[in-house]
Amino acid sequence: MAQLLSSSCSLTFSASNKPCLKPFHQCSTSFSNTVVCDNSKTPFRQLFLREQKPRKSLAVVNASTISTGQEAPVQTSSGDPFKPKRVMVIGGDGYCGWATALHLSNKGYEVAIVDNLVRRLFDHQLGLDSLTPISSIQDRIQCWKSLTGKSIELYIGDICEFEFLSETFKSYEPDAVVHFGEQRSAPYSMIDRSRAVYTQQNNVVGTLNVLFAIKEYREDCHLVKLGTMGEYGTPNIDIEEGYITITHNGRTDTLPYPKQASSFYHLSKVHDSHNIAFTCKAWGIRATDLNQGVVYGVRTDETAMHEELCNRFDYDAIFGTALNRFCVQAAVGHPLTVYGKGGQTRAFLDIRDTVQCVELAIANPANPGEFRVFNQFTEQFKVTELAELVTKAGEKLGLDVKTISVPNPRVELEEHYYNCKNTKLVDLGLKPHFLSDSLIDSLLNFAVQYKDRVDTKQIMPGVSWRKVGVKTKTLTS
Amino acid sequence: MAQLLSSSCSLTFSASNKPCLKPFHQCSTSFSNTVVCDNSKTPFRQLFLREQKPRKSLAVVNASTISTGQEAPVQTSSGDPFKPKRVMVIGGDGYCGWATALHLSNKGYEVAIVDNLVRRLFDHQLGLDSLTPISSIQDRIQCWKSLTGKSIELYIGDICEFEFLSETFKSYEPDAVVHFGEQRSAPYSMIDRSRAVYTQQNNVVGTLNVLFAIKEYREDCHLVKLGTMGEYGTPNIDIEEGYITITHNGRTDTLPYPKQASSFYHLSKVHDSHNIAFTCKAWGIRATDLNQGVVYGVRTDETAMHEELCNRFDYDAIFGTALNRFCVQAAVGHPLTVYGKGGQTRAFLDIRDTVQCVELAIANPANPGEFRVFNQFTEQFKVTELAELVTKAGEKLGLDVKTISVPNPRVELEEHYYNCKNTKLVDLGLKPHFLSDSLIDSLLNFAVQYKDRVDTKQIMPGVSWRKVGVKTKTLTS
Repeated sequence: MAQLLSSSCSLTFSASNKPCLKPFHQCSTSFSNTVVCDNSKTPFRQLFLREQKPRKSLAVVNASTISTGQEAPVQTSSGDPFKPKRVMVIGGDGYCGWATALHLSNKGYEVAIVDNLVRRLFDHQLGLDSLTPISSIQDRIQCWKSLTGKSIELYIGDICEFEFLSETFKSYEPDAVVHFGEQRSAPYSMIDRSRAVYTQQNNVVGTLNVLFAIKEYREDCHLVKLGTMGEYGTPNIDIEEGYITITHNGRTDTLPYPKQASSFYHLSKVHDSHNIAFTCKAWGIRATDLNQGVVYGVRTDETAMHEELCNRFDYDAIFGTALNRFCVQAAVGHPLTVYGKGGQTRAFLDIRDTVQCVELAIANPANPGEFRVFNQFTEQFKVTELAELVTKAGEKLGLDVKTISVPNPRVELEEHYYNCKNTKLVDLGLKPHFLSDSLIDSLLNFAVQYKDRVDTKQIMPGVSWRKVGVKTKTLTS
Repeated sequence: MAQLLSSSCSLTFSASNKPCLKPFHQCSTSFSNTVVCDNSKTPFRQLFLREQKPRKSLAVVNASTISTGQEAPVQTSSGDPFKPKRVMVIGGDGYCGWATALHLSNKGYEVAIVDNLVRRLFDHQLGLDSLTPISSIQDRIQCWKSLTGKSIELYIGDICEFEFLSETFKSYEPDAVVHFGEQRSAPYSMIDRSRAVYTQQNNVVGTLNVLFAIKEYREDCHLVKLGTMGEYGTPNIDIEEGYITITHNGRTDTLPYPKQASSFYHLSKVHDSHNIAFTCKAWGIRATDLNQGVVYGVRTDETAMHEELCNRFDYDAIFGTALNRFCVQAAVGHPLTVYGKGGQTRAFLDIRDTVQCVELAIANPANPGEFRVFNQFTEQFKVTELAELVTKAGEKLGLDVKTISVPNPRVELEEHYYNCKNTKLVDLGLKPHFLSDSLIDSLLNFAVQYKDRVDTKQIMPGVSWRKVGVKTKTLTS
């Protein structure tokens, strides 16, 4: 789809021409020049491509030269005309973010993606790659426009830099912000001290900036923040949705559910939750925290429309989630790697439900001052149960699937009670895609299709919770 | 005492000669030069003054030219010879830190102070000053040495810079680290976005670095971390010490007590608590979290020994705590400023108990892997009760003390249930100094003694929880 990109677009390009290979928060270069450029492949920090004169933005891509049709207004079930229409998806180039951005665009929302693309940089730095070939964000957006006539605006920059974020907010004026824009891997956060600090600093500061931007520029804007079920840990009592009513010494209060996160990444989400809760109370921010389970699957209705819209699919030990990784392992004849006893129970959901849940949260905003927490998952599985499901599905395809127990690189209980509530999104209308044989079949087929792209060196865990040290790791395994 | 400082000490001075008026984390200058200098007043970032060749340290002051006597070994009540002896006090130039460093030194511990002195910079930037004149940290340490023969080592630098911290750890080899080294004012954290982000970044990253340093270099070292009672907020049930046993749907577990902090500062302490708890579990760190109440008072046995040892005493609306501020207000004829209804109940303690509690925690270390939480306070008061106590004491001194209600700059309940447990430190042997008429009398007399130094412009609250914005505030009121 690259040919669809305008060859004479106006590009305001506020960076040096040298690629910066450090994570953006470590860059110290100052950016102030404006140039005109006809090549969107140049390394950049903040840029905008536009057919027309920019409104008031520093960094916007309307990545299209094709005329557009009239877009349908958002219609919600209630027909309420005050529902949000303009959605900013921070981290919209990532696994969940890209699928969500397309889904919302497809449903008639106006969508802008905000992303610094650092997830792609992590792949370069760690020697990893998506199982699926993925297009550049510019080509993805261009393809979407050519297929559907729908524009997605693109703001490239780092939300930890408030100047960028404030210009983006003032330019786009979102009604809702979906915030996926965080370092999202527990193993990544446990590689070394530098990555641990980066993860917490990046995630906490980015979210603080978003909160300040909402307060300052769009006080009615609804924050839909991606949390994680991992914030709760594995307590020996039922896990409620964000809050628990406690009777103690004859008195009762409803308090935030206690948190026991077990990686610097999961902890960063706990920190975010506390910060957001405070700003809801102090400033009247309206926020929904989506404590998401482990996501599996690759196709959504929208990403399946064209190969250039294909989502990323991580199978490595850093970014790959359990079920996706097992399917790739089965496809290439690598034993399924169960960590320790495999009795770890976790909450899971299909990526088609991720996009559905986010849409439901946006369409039914939190009230001003409300900090709402939804547990976003559809089913619970033990790791060994997932391995068994993949083994059975593999056999049907004639694959010889073995399972091995590898020493658990994490610090976690391997057998424990786990019972989480998840009624709030169902009450809003979620229609779950439960894990089925056919879904595993299709995931396995998908993995087989791309198996020549698998780097088996990336499958075994290389990051230890106990051995993480202060020396920066620079070599990939 | 400045004359006691050696006039020909060796100074390794690794900074440019230009003073840096930004908080250290914002500095981008690189530091690598080594010079010899005979003036300890030069602005600096990391320096060491030594009589002798440095051991392996980058940044140490043994600020003395006077010969020392033999120091008594630490003797604890149990006579256990394995008790810690070498204590690193991070933030040892601050209000609680300085008093603690002297107290521990007096009790026979070997003490090193680690501080970047940024608290003094905040005073310059905000146009504030301690009611009491305070000496430079170099002169303070020199004075202590001349009076007692006891050395305190000084490492000047920023614990957010891991290279500095790691050198400090490897050089000093502490048995216990007392960590006061954080931005500790709630109003400061609510001045503007920049200070909010600074507070969380500085506090969270500094503590992460300390945890990594312990893991890497001194795995048996006991972390004694200053938290705050403000982490709990004001729930409608009794506040336990760190954990609460919850029975829910027929099952029971003991979980971290839910946190409801109400400023970006208090939230930073919540984040620290979660991070520390995780590292205790994952790495076997031994840690004690001291959830301290509001500290009042100025003199401890040690700081009273010489005027050059005098502690700082903050009365301004940013750093001044309630009772101290009320005494200064009474002394200068300014009405006592009660925020809102004044029904806010908080936990309080005398600074003489702060130093006692820290000593008890050090002398009775947490076990490896244990995350121990003590509520460090001795009494609870409503703000109006404190105002009444100061009013009565003022009348005895012939002062005409008025109280006014000012619009509450904070977001907090002004009438609420509050009942906190604090038995653990008492069980270890704490002998509380309860707030008495005579203490308030002496504080008032103290305030009267220094009343010519009071800047009444700094008394009224100038920072609003609700109005905090993204524009950096550069003007002082």
